[in-house]
Amino acid sequence: MSGSPDELVRRILDGEARALARAISIVEDRLPRSREIIEAVYPRAGSAPIVGVTGPPGAGKSTLVDGLTAAYRRENRKVGVIAVDPSSAFSGGAVLGDRIRMQRHSTDEGVFIRSMATRGHFGGLAAATVDVADLMDAGGCDVVIIETVGVGQDEVDVVGVADVVLVVLVPGMGDDIQTIKAGIMEIPDIFVLNKADREGIDRLQADVKAMLGFVETSRRPVPRIVRAVATTGEGIEALHREIADFLGSIGPEMMRARRRDRGRKRLIDLLRERVLEWAVGPATGGVFEGFVESLAERRIDPYTAVDRLMEKLGGPA
Amino acid sequence: MSGSPDELVRRILDGEARALARAISIVEDRLPRSREIIEAVYPRAGSAPIVGVTGPPGAGKSTLVDGLTAAYRRENRKVGVIAVDPSSAFSGGAVLGDRIRMQRHSTDEGVFIRSMATRGHFGGLAAATVDVADLMDAGGCDVVIIETVGVGQDEVDVVGVADVVLVVLVPGMGDDIQTIKAGIMEIPDIFVLNKADREGIDRLQADVKAMLGFVETSRRPVPRIVRAVATTGEGIEALHREIADFLGSIGPEMMRARRRDRGRKRLIDLLRERVLEWAVGPATGGVFEGFVESLAERRIDPYTAVDRLMEKLGGPA
Repeated sequence: MSGSPDELVRRILDGEARALARAISIVEDRLPRSREIIEAVYPRAGSAPIVGVTGPPGAGKSTLVDGLTAAYRRENRKVGVIAVDPSSAFSGGAVLGDRIRMQRHSTDEGVFIRSMATRGHFGGLAAATVDVADLMDAGGCDVVIIETVGVGQDEVDVVGVADVVLVVLVPGMGDDIQTIKAGIMEIPDIFVLNKADREGIDRLQADVKAMLGFVETSRRPVPRIVRAVATTGEGIEALHREIADFLGSIGPEMMRARRRDRGRKRLIDLLRERVLEWAVGPATGGVFEGFVESLAERRIDPYTAVDRLMEKLGGPA
Repeated sequence: MSGSPDELVRRILDGEARALARAISIVEDRLPRSREIIEAVYPRAGSAPIVGVTGPPGAGKSTLVDGLTAAYRRENRKVGVIAVDPSSAFSGGAVLGDRIRMQRHSTDEGVFIRSMATRGHFGGLAAATVDVADLMDAGGCDVVIIETVGVGQDEVDVVGVADVVLVVLVPGMGDDIQTIKAGIMEIPDIFVLNKADREGIDRLQADVKAMLGFVETSRRPVPRIVRAVATTGEGIEALHREIADFLGSIGPEMMRARRRDRGRKRLIDLLRERVLEWAVGPATGGVFEGFVESLAERRIDPYTAVDRLMEKLGGPA
């Protein structure tokens, strides 16, 4: 394996797909060189809009992302796709069968697809995902799509780094849809009501609209609603236009505010783990495990234990 | 509202349900008195086993928990149930309609039921959940059941505090089951295959067994598999016995190791937020937002920014 980080970075900036793939692996595995690579690439990234796509399992997100990718390709724009795959959490490997669908783009040099696992990322998965998005951006992608399955806090964090967030819902999920909708109601810029040829689509749209009425939407435009049938391609062009329209409409000031938010989250993600590692280890002189023992034996309560540790750090008790 | 924390704690330890309810509200809302209450209660808790129940939406967890509760009641044991409700994440209120089912226990003084939201908990939801479990334990519950919907990291963290973890799966979830199973394969002590009267139950059991073959299980007994039809009560007694059997089989040493793990996680959860708050604020003299701005404008990369902040803390660069 030849190539210094400098050379690798040069090749990424030249748009070499293999260099990009290698850099992503290095960054994903947090190998020693990853830091140098991000340091070098970071100032060169930041121009490609990031499109976040999330929703419950079975909502047809991958097919939708596939269609969106094709739409961007028709405009001759290079597309990076990051599939954040919860199945890898424990198994250590991607098992999302529907990624195979993306293979129609696999021979297209204008599409760069990458799967990521959801665990074991120093500094949080959201931070790791943005690092990969930055690499794709620096490597010449004109738009980066981040796709993730689910509606938990992890998924909200991951798509929260995007410039525009799509939440995909489908009719006929029964009462569970209530739970899911409530959990993600505040994050989307665009609701995609997929499988719109199914019974219950009007009910779903009415439900989404009703819920939107309850949500505080002052900090951003009211979320849009787009119907689609991803498997037939119906609604994909409309969605593609809505995304462009949304990105055009939010204006430089709000875009700056979003990117400042993203920067803050990223810094906090990295700092949280660094500072915790330091606090648990060197900064408290190895007393941490003693507190754990006392806690397990109920000789001390957790709040008092944390106070004592904070005192050792020189922080407020 | 009369009653000092001391008096409230005394009433909790006397088994007064209203005092327990009030203390839980105080702890859940992190009111000033919550800390005193936990400090006082913590040494008195730790004897009730905690049963964690998770699984995808629609798997019938609530009905199962209802059946288990009835089984414990037949033994005349007091039961605490904590329903961790992801729907409350943004909406601010519980919407799990199936909690209504638990109403058959609502006039039973031996059952104490509480719903919790999944967000905005200082120190993490898992920590808040254990605080509530401790309160229930100190208030006389002989067993505490924590139920949560989903298979994401939050849910894994929440049930991870339990002494025995049940994962509920059902046949006929299509390919999504692959994703779900892979995501939670390492956490369960007992797999409950619910809706066992449905087609596909043998296939599901074979799938679970096959997946277990791939998973590292050295650190605990091999997970058990129990079939059930929660709606008819079929398999509930068997599950009840398996839980007791599992708890009896793990031995004091492993139990101690599990509780030490729980203590460590809890301490880390609390410390992480305290130390981060300190690091972002007073400890770095208000320079944090400046770094956020530089980061957003790509004048500095996140790793270098974190290094600078760590230097200010007196930690390793």
